[in-house]
Amino acid sequence: MQQLYIIKIGGNIIDDEATLALFLKDIASINCPKILIHGGGKLATTLAEQMGVKQTMVAGRRITDADTLKIVTMVYAGFINKNIVAKLNANNCAAIGLTGADANLIAAHKRSNNTIDYGFVGDIDLVNSAVVDSMLQQNFTIVVAPITCDSTGQLLNTNADSIANEIAKAMSILYKVSLIYCFEKNGVLQNANDDDSVINKISTVDYEQLKAKQVISGGMIPKLDNAFAALQHGVQHVCIGHANNVLQLINKQTGTVITND
Amino acid sequence: MQQLYIIKIGGNIIDDEATLALFLKDIASINCPKILIHGGGKLATTLAEQMGVKQTMVAGRRITDADTLKIVTMVYAGFINKNIVAKLNANNCAAIGLTGADANLIAAHKRSNNTIDYGFVGDIDLVNSAVVDSMLQQNFTIVVAPITCDSTGQLLNTNADSIANEIAKAMSILYKVSLIYCFEKNGVLQNANDDDSVINKISTVDYEQLKAKQVISGGMIPKLDNAFAALQHGVQHVCIGHANNVLQLINKQTGTVITND
Repeated sequence: MQQLYIIKIGGNIIDDEATLALFLKDIASINCPKILIHGGGKLATTLAEQMGVKQTMVAGRRITDADTLKIVTMVYAGFINKNIVAKLNANNCAAIGLTGADANLIAAHKRSNNTIDYGFVGDIDLVNSAVVDSMLQQNFTIVVAPITCDSTGQLLNTNADSIANEIAKAMSILYKVSLIYCFEKNGVLQNANDDDSVINKISTVDYEQLKAKQVISGGMIPKLDNAFAALQHGVQHVCIGHANNVLQLINKQTGTVITND
Repeated sequence: MQQLYIIKIGGNIIDDEATLALFLKDIASINCPKILIHGGGKLATTLAEQMGVKQTMVAGRRITDADTLKIVTMVYAGFINKNIVAKLNANNCAAIGLTGADANLIAAHKRSNNTIDYGFVGDIDLVNSAVVDSMLQQNFTIVVAPITCDSTGQLLNTNADSIANEIAKAMSILYKVSLIYCFEKNGVLQNANDDDSVINKISTVDYEQLKAKQVISGGMIPKLDNAFAALQHGVQHVCIGHANNVLQLINKQTGTVITND
């Protein structure tokens, strides 16, 4: 099977123009089918402040009301997505920027929750692997913004890690998939204050121990849960590391590798 | 050759949610390859006000400074484009929303003008007809936002009428192309104050006479110049009329037909 790289970048990388430019140059140099999924960044928060749209957080999560949905659609699908696409093009990497709504890429539904109303937040039902494959075979690098829609045409704010994970699982039927989570740290750290304390490898047994010792906590837990789920659904290689080292991450020379051992 | 409909909608249609919903239902019912190009609408102006970005007009044209470019990219490529795509999907019309930057759809350059600096405004060099054709053959309705980029990856605000026109000309090598400009009037009017005074047909001779009598003036002139240029470059049918009547416009039952006689 052909190699496919699915790379997620977080908001902190997007916010720094110089870091993003170098990262996209690296991405463009990868001579393989590839999909880039980006998150948000500070721009959505700044724009909400400028527009006087109050952001409500419940249990650490942003509630997506109608105005917030408008903002994230503008920022994620508009500004960030199109800037990434244009910069990849300039690096001779033909890119196509999509949301889950485009080309029926992702079928989603509005999250229902009896205790918390998250608003216009989407959970993924299905990734259209045939459409993704067709675009990859046309040599396009696909850039996905974390917006989906439901069958009624309602746009939905959708977690970018989940999108990366679901695309990786769906494409593992057709490709040998590597799923790479890039962020502003060198990997999963043994000591949160020491950037050099990267844990090279985390197995399922290690994971339980690291959670019990609270070495791994907070936002890293859903990320790693996603990572293990991907491995269980046919994804061959999952790793987490710094966006500056994306080429070394791909070559398994740095970062934290997640294994199903 | 296969029939292709290229339909441009203006800002006034986009601003009215109910009108837009009916229009998109009509578009979805067209059982032929089709491309929809949309303009801006009031949202960009409203957002600029909210963000405190002053809009500069020179000779009736908006100057696109860096902040304005950010706004139009967010509004056109983000909010408007993705809402149209999601609503077409909900009408069982698989749509893909693109800017000129995506999939190298349109090559453009920053406008240079010795007297007025329009800012980040793009003029079109080339439409990638092979990419457009490939998406149409996959049964996608293409929805184009009026943003392009140059070879350095600089995004550029680009006139939606010009995009419609250039796509129509490029695709007329592969398809029998109808180019339909939809706006909030029933067609080109003999008397601007009488919505029923539609001129059914305008030939090149008529056009010169109507301009001389100032029946046609202002913003209608570049629109009609574009229309005649399209006919001279192989487009088979060009008409202008009300968005509410798009199906009748396609069937040549209403609006103003532009002819090269």
